[in-house]
Amino acid sequence: MTSADLTPQTPAPATAGSGPEALDAILRDNFAPWIQRLGLRVEEAGERRTVLRLPWSDELAREGGGLSGQAMMAAADTATALAVCAARGGFVPMTTVQQSTTFQRPVSGRDVLVDVRITKLGRTLAFAEVTLTAEGATEPAAHATTVYALLG
Amino acid sequence: MTSADLTPQTPAPATAGSGPEALDAILRDNFAPWIQRLGLRVEEAGERRTVLRLPWSDELAREGGGLSGQAMMAAADTATALAVCAARGGFVPMTTVQQSTTFQRPVSGRDVLVDVRITKLGRTLAFAEVTLTAEGATEPAAHATTVYALLG
Amino acid sequence: MTSADLTPQTPAPATAGSGPEALDAILRDNFAPWIQRLGLRVEEAGERRTVLRLPWSDELAREGGGLSGQAMMAAADTATALAVCAARGGFVPMTTVQQSTTFQRPVSGRDVLVDVRITKLGRTLAFAEVTLTAEGATEPAAHATTVYALLG
Amino acid sequence: MTSADLTPQTPAPATAGSGPEALDAILRDNFAPWIQRLGLRVEEAGERRTVLRLPWSDELAREGGGLSGQAMMAAADTATALAVCAARGGFVPMTTVQQSTTFQRPVSGRDVLVDVRITKLGRTLAFAEVTLTAEGATEPAAHATTVYALLG
Repeated sequence: MTSADLTPQTPAPATAGSGPEALDAILRDNFAPWIQRLGLRVEEAGERRTVLRLPWSDELAREGGGLSGQAMMAAADTATALAVCAARGGFVPMTTVQQSTTFQRPVSGRDVLVDVRITKLGRTLAFAEVTLTAEGATEPAAHATTVYALLG
Repeated sequence: MTSADLTPQTPAPATAGSGPEALDAILRDNFAPWIQRLGLRVEEAGERRTVLRLPWSDELAREGGGLSGQAMMAAADTATALAVCAARGGFVPMTTVQQSTTFQRPVSGRDVLVDVRITKLGRTLAFAEVTLTAEGATEPAAHATTVYALLG
Repeated sequence: MTSADLTPQTPAPATAGSGPEALDAILRDNFAPWIQRLGLRVEEAGERRTVLRLPWSDELAREGGGLSGQAMMAAADTATALAVCAARGGFVPMTTVQQSTTFQRPVSGRDVLVDVRITKLGRTLAFAEVTLTAEGATEPAAHATTVYALLG
Repeated sequence: MTSADLTPQTPAPATAGSGPEALDAILRDNFAPWIQRLGLRVEEAGERRTVLRLPWSDELAREGGGLSGQAMMAAADTATALAVCAARGGFVPMTTVQQSTTFQRPVSGRDVLVDVRITKLGRTLAFAEVTLTAEGATEPAAHATTVYALLG
């Protein structure tokens, strides 16, 4: 995201609360149409941990059959923003400062679970670790660390 | 990308050569449909430097108006893959190992130029720096460093 | 490290085995004198997880009293190299490809435990996550992701 | 660094100004003794660009002969802090938020020039790119991106 991304003109009532439904609403109301196409769904939402599902889609892969790493990076960023909202108890304007992602194993034909752990929620900065794992796998497909600036 | 992404079942003739047209063909033939939606176009292709254009699109932004950072991360990864093909003189199977991205300035209503400089092209690993700048701006919107594993 | 760092002229007998003592010997025999000054000690060594202790020292801090982040980055890199040796059952020549580190909390007057988890041990690349936590603390002081190229 | 590192009990008169001598004084007064051992010297100091020299020393290498990557990471972090001071016209308390470093070429027997370019100097965050090149070489030995939080 860039700083404008999560700064709605007017606070959306949909963003009250921080359960999976509230986060799904924040996702629907605050992210780009191109990001909506990822089909991300919030599976768990908690103060320290939030989990999203990235459903398998041929749109995100190629005839070679692998899930694009770009989709995993985008999912990690989006999931972190929602995890911060969950940790803060509702929508909060923020901007991504830095994301570092490693790609460790290919994914093909399976959903990916995007597991975000907030490791530091400061007044102005939030830090998270994101582990992306193909459903049913034990080892990660990718891992990201993310840093966000909190604007409100 | 993940390792499968750039491994076509059969080498595509379109991938011969390494000029802008050849790279546009590699982009069209080897990336996910979701990535095609970015509308990336190759502006320059060289042994050490390749430049892509990420056209402004409301699909990549939100009513707040900012270009999504996820689109910039995806553009940086895609541009690096194409820059490695340009440096190697044609399509080469590869996989992203690591990408680190910083987000420095919001972008709104303007195309972004994605400028890739290959800093090391080894036998098995390639390193690049990617600077993303809104057209007409002098300061970067984002910056990425990328590491790729070359599979062929 | 750079590629030369862990390539001894002749394999050192001290590097046989992969318990804490063997890793301490690898550390003593293969790292720069400047790194020896960190006083790192191996506390645990396993196939997937290795833990080092970075003892508190005023040499690593300043009158302001905080442990330098540079010492934490160096400890994370060193600990990853030893963790790969532990995972491979003995010394293996390798080179750092990439390290991304976030700094989340200051440390003062306490040892730091450097906990390395190998998340992927491939034929040519190894990936790890490193969590640095002040002794007695529950939240991390710093976190690193590391990528190594295995040369043997 | 951690947040304590550059917060002196009392502002040091040595930190007035921002030329090479002033930055050398900031380095001497504000960094850990272990960092002083790197022998870093400020070669250039400007608003947007600062260059340090990391002199070759066997203390930073091993009998294999390669400069330790840990020394290059530490030099990049230290150089960024000094570059921010140069950009702000004098000492400013700050803390490292994130550093991402790639290691591209080994260095042996030569000084390394640490070239910092400040790409964004905001009110609360600073971003920089750091290129480390062995003296006389044209290609980088390592590259780092750094993010700092400005505390004053």
